[in-house]
Amino acid sequence: MVNTMKKVAVIMGSDSDLPVVEKAFAVLDEYGVPYEAHVMSAHRTPEAVASFVKNARANGFGVIIAAAGMAAHLAGVCAASTTLPVIGIPVRGGMLDGLDALLSTVQMPTGIPVATVAMNGAANAALLACEMIALSDDALAEKLDNARIAGAEKVYAKDAALQEKLK
Amino acid sequence: MVNTMKKVAVIMGSDSDLPVVEKAFAVLDEYGVPYEAHVMSAHRTPEAVASFVKNARANGFGVIIAAAGMAAHLAGVCAASTTLPVIGIPVRGGMLDGLDALLSTVQMPTGIPVATVAMNGAANAALLACEMIALSDDALAEKLDNARIAGAEKVYAKDAALQEKLK
Amino acid sequence: MVNTMKKVAVIMGSDSDLPVVEKAFAVLDEYGVPYEAHVMSAHRTPEAVASFVKNARANGFGVIIAAAGMAAHLAGVCAASTTLPVIGIPVRGGMLDGLDALLSTVQMPTGIPVATVAMNGAANAALLACEMIALSDDALAEKLDNARIAGAEKVYAKDAALQEKLK
Amino acid sequence: MVNTMKKVAVIMGSDSDLPVVEKAFAVLDEYGVPYEAHVMSAHRTPEAVASFVKNARANGFGVIIAAAGMAAHLAGVCAASTTLPVIGIPVRGGMLDGLDALLSTVQMPTGIPVATVAMNGAANAALLACEMIALSDDALAEKLDNARIAGAEKVYAKDAALQEKLK
Amino acid sequence: MVNTMKKVAVIMGSDSDLPVVEKAFAVLDEYGVPYEAHVMSAHRTPEAVASFVKNARANGFGVIIAAAGMAAHLAGVCAASTTLPVIGIPVRGGMLDGLDALLSTVQMPTGIPVATVAMNGAANAALLACEMIALSDDALAEKLDNARIAGAEKVYAKDAALQEKLK
Amino acid sequence: MVNTMKKVAVIMGSDSDLPVVEKAFAVLDEYGVPYEAHVMSAHRTPEAVASFVKNARANGFGVIIAAAGMAAHLAGVCAASTTLPVIGIPVRGGMLDGLDALLSTVQMPTGIPVATVAMNGAANAALLACEMIALSDDALAEKLDNARIAGAEKVYAKDAALQEKLK
Amino acid sequence: MVNTMKKVAVIMGSDSDLPVVEKAFAVLDEYGVPYEAHVMSAHRTPEAVASFVKNARANGFGVIIAAAGMAAHLAGVCAASTTLPVIGIPVRGGMLDGLDALLSTVQMPTGIPVATVAMNGAANAALLACEMIALSDDALAEKLDNARIAGAEKVYAKDAALQEKLK
Amino acid sequence: MVNTMKKVAVIMGSDSDLPVVEKAFAVLDEYGVPYEAHVMSAHRTPEAVASFVKNARANGFGVIIAAAGMAAHLAGVCAASTTLPVIGIPVRGGMLDGLDALLSTVQMPTGIPVATVAMNGAANAALLACEMIALSDDALAEKLDNARIAGAEKVYAKDAALQEKLK
Repeated sequence: MVNTMKKVAVIMGSDSDLPVVEKAFAVLDEYGVPYEAHVMSAHRTPEAVASFVKNARANGFGVIIAAAGMAAHLAGVCAASTTLPVIGIPVRGGMLDGLDALLSTVQMPTGIPVATVAMNGAANAALLACEMIALSDDALAEKLDNARIAGAEKVYAKDAALQEKLK
Repeated sequence: MVNTMKKVAVIMGSDSDLPVVEKAFAVLDEYGVPYEAHVMSAHRTPEAVASFVKNARANGFGVIIAAAGMAAHLAGVCAASTTLPVIGIPVRGGMLDGLDALLSTVQMPTGIPVATVAMNGAANAALLACEMIALSDDALAEKLDNARIAGAEKVYAKDAALQEKLK
Repeated sequence: MVNTMKKVAVIMGSDSDLPVVEKAFAVLDEYGVPYEAHVMSAHRTPEAVASFVKNARANGFGVIIAAAGMAAHLAGVCAASTTLPVIGIPVRGGMLDGLDALLSTVQMPTGIPVATVAMNGAANAALLACEMIALSDDALAEKLDNARIAGAEKVYAKDAALQEKLK
Repeated sequence: MVNTMKKVAVIMGSDSDLPVVEKAFAVLDEYGVPYEAHVMSAHRTPEAVASFVKNARANGFGVIIAAAGMAAHLAGVCAASTTLPVIGIPVRGGMLDGLDALLSTVQMPTGIPVATVAMNGAANAALLACEMIALSDDALAEKLDNARIAGAEKVYAKDAALQEKLK
Repeated sequence: MVNTMKKVAVIMGSDSDLPVVEKAFAVLDEYGVPYEAHVMSAHRTPEAVASFVKNARANGFGVIIAAAGMAAHLAGVCAASTTLPVIGIPVRGGMLDGLDALLSTVQMPTGIPVATVAMNGAANAALLACEMIALSDDALAEKLDNARIAGAEKVYAKDAALQEKLK
Repeated sequence: MVNTMKKVAVIMGSDSDLPVVEKAFAVLDEYGVPYEAHVMSAHRTPEAVASFVKNARANGFGVIIAAAGMAAHLAGVCAASTTLPVIGIPVRGGMLDGLDALLSTVQMPTGIPVATVAMNGAANAALLACEMIALSDDALAEKLDNARIAGAEKVYAKDAALQEKLK
Repeated sequence: MVNTMKKVAVIMGSDSDLPVVEKAFAVLDEYGVPYEAHVMSAHRTPEAVASFVKNARANGFGVIIAAAGMAAHLAGVCAASTTLPVIGIPVRGGMLDGLDALLSTVQMPTGIPVATVAMNGAANAALLACEMIALSDDALAEKLDNARIAGAEKVYAKDAALQEKLK
Repeated sequence: MVNTMKKVAVIMGSDSDLPVVEKAFAVLDEYGVPYEAHVMSAHRTPEAVASFVKNARANGFGVIIAAAGMAAHLAGVCAASTTLPVIGIPVRGGMLDGLDALLSTVQMPTGIPVATVAMNGAANAALLACEMIALSDDALAEKLDNARIAGAEKVYAKDAALQEKLK
């Protein structure tokens, strides 16, 4: 039987955002969530963005992740053309450690939400997408829970290593 | 047949956040999405928060919305105890127009995502929750799409009114 | 002979921006520059914005003024669809005295410029539009120069009034 | 026949701003728009600035671009002496990633507008100047439109490259 | 014998700054330091500012105080035309509680200093002017010292009142 | 006789904070104050944090020092589970030079205080802990006083060195 | 037998800070911790501050609380003259919602710590002082623990009230 | 005849500020203004600061320059003990590009002014001191005026060099 899991679309405003965005690919690969990634610009190819996003639900996508810096309009422009959940990643590099991108992404008007993660938080954007898809996928939910346990174990191991070091 | 739609939990750190949070109730009511609301504090009742959130998935919840101001730890503390998607609403009232609450909510470390909306953005938090639940509920997705059309119509009407006024 | 002066389009993201934007109307009226004003939203009616702006040059417009607050994407979205000069007015009301709107408007990527004026600076946006149109309209340029002289006279009069008061 | 296109004046407050400002020269060269560049300081040579700017229209200039950092008064001081459109480039290097230069440039009082572009946004300043001159120069307008199409093509090519890479 | 004490010039960018600036008048009156006050604008009457400031030393002035808000260029423009000490008062009212005016006033380039006081700090600007003039006026220096003693006495009295209240 | 001095617990959210936190170890060693250090995360191991902190007083701890960056919830989460004094060290590395960590640490709601020190201020956090313990340990208080005298001597020595240099 | 509990000194830079500081008095009264309050200014009565603080330990004080706004030097000036723990309360009223006071209070150099609480956080400053004194006072520690339980009960009651309201 | 010119005192909070402060020495040397420089700390040697400053006028000083970073209390602490003009140099190195030092230096309360210059603006601090001393020293005033002319010449030369380069 074919994989019918909803796909995640990862859109970046510029290919210079790739080093940040690749952390999302790693997470999606780890959880076995199918995705497509695209370079599309809210300002340079607005019609391509609108067209892709408008058809995203019909094309099997469940979540849109959009990464952009400076006057980061990409997530908002995506959200304007779909009611799929849109996750925005503010990318550092503009002014004030990316405060320009954070405020441009998070301060959306009523009716057009964007789920914003931390500056350069591509891994968390992907995790959040997985959490959304896991709402109707118990196996994925279980994977996420297991990863939390593994994450805690790592912290315990680091604490143990510190105890060794401080002896 | 009973309503088997996943519920939304709306948690606020203090009942003083209610005027902000009530806008989320209105949206959830409008879309027929069941919800529970609670006053629970990351700092004053941390065990109640952890206990509620840990059992949330088993208790039929699909999304957690957490609203808090100042050093707004509530959303992060919720996210620490569940892999359900957690939406954070930074509440204005602390310093720098709520920049304290925004940064405390959005700047989460890798592994524990929070989906942050705009300052006081309770309506959008609820919409985002609906969008997540609609991933496996086509009727809800259609309602969301229709609301967008209605939202556009309102803007067209306002533009028409402006044309009248400027004649 | 008909007025062949290029028109100014004044677009606001919400009719709640009207009290700010009206100062632009007053200036354009004063200088006899024809204009149209519209309520159009980058997020709620993105296609209307794109369609209007794309046809703006053909429809006799010379300058686009766009006013928006919070994650103020409107000016940038306009600029994405035209090579007419686009002037952005950040509207106060979001976070940090409108720093969200200012950064969302001014921090545009290379290739898609927006001419940004001060927070709520609608009068200056209109003046800037007049200055642009005056590049090929000497009578308008002269009006602008005369207004500067009148502006200086007002300051001299205020200084004279202060001297009276301090006697 | 001689070139009667209006010239652009590019003024920088210090020759240390040259690496930023040179991006404007490249754009103006690309579009065939004539320009002059000058080092002139609002604080060290205020009379030279005032004299140059006051005579700019008569001397065939259509747009003034002014680049300065820190307490960036240059664009405002230029705008005080002309009704030609003045474009301000805030130059990074002072405090808060150039927030000092941005606010000093953009927050002009009513009556004396400055068209502000992004931090270090010299290329966009030049493009904006071209857009203004193109209001009465259809060939230049067409060049600007063509560059937009070329810009979109570049994004499509980068997306295609990404698809290759992700295969 | 005539009063040969150097005068203080108090320049404000707009008569709307008068409520702030009047506190400077009160201090100068209290210390018997002669002053003139003027409304002059760096942007609307730049030549009047330059002319006044250039002749200030010859006309018996010892210190220039300049008050302005938003992109507060006035103090810097004064400093550009004199080597008399220039004191800048950033006036609240623009963005970020006057951070625009503070940075525009204080972040002057090497060679053209401005002595900046606190936001709306007109009384301290006047005191600072008195301190400068007192460098060659022992009687004034003594008055300033006495005022410090009186200021301390006031604090002691307030503390005594608090002790009464808390009994 | 056994050392009955109260211990200090130094908790860091991640072992990447160790280079900052080690300065606290050095100070505690210098003053002979016993301590334990742990890697524990408010988000990855919330139960370990709560359990450790709740039992801290019974286990002989007198002060908790918590160091974390970004949305730095660790100190607040510790404070939520104990009435021992909790000292928060905001760790640089997130946004705006650690303003995210500073505001997340210091802006605690009424009832749950955190004693916040400077960005990366681990040495001062340890000194503050010593000062608290010294409230019932006169020998420690004397050591602290002596260190102040030694600190002053160092400044005098540096001044003397400067005088040599400037001769 | 006389009360030998260490006293808390509450120092405010101006009697205008009293409405903020009074919340500290209420907490100290509630916990039966003796205190003195004083109006003393780091700038207007620096010798009174230094003298009071230097003798504070000998005079039976255990903790100094210092509240000040704007360039809030008071806590730092206190800390410079004692090794008693000094708690700083930044008082709102200057710039940027009191960011001036927060940074002036918290960013102390190594060797001279100040324990900073939230903007206007006088109640928490007093609680923190109680927590410090409770390190050698088990009865006070128990009172603090009981207050936490009572605080949690209040939140439970508010949640119950919300459930009633939402029925 | 002995040099009776008033001396400038240059105080730095730490010898790590020397690279910044040395630019002041160069300016004072250039203008032949006598000065002393000292390392003195508002927090580590508060009595040395107070003692030096209180006797400064009697010891022949006319201006105090104080340089400090982070919670930069030094200039304010100096100003508290003298009515000589005190110039504050905020030193970069703390948070937000030195916004902590700037606000700590400039936001002084009424009655105790500090003349603040730009971040790291030691050269301008020295120039400002010269301008103050020149109020009663015409030869020094003339030197300052000549330096302005030389400064303008340098800009003209740079402009000429740019014209060569752009040919």
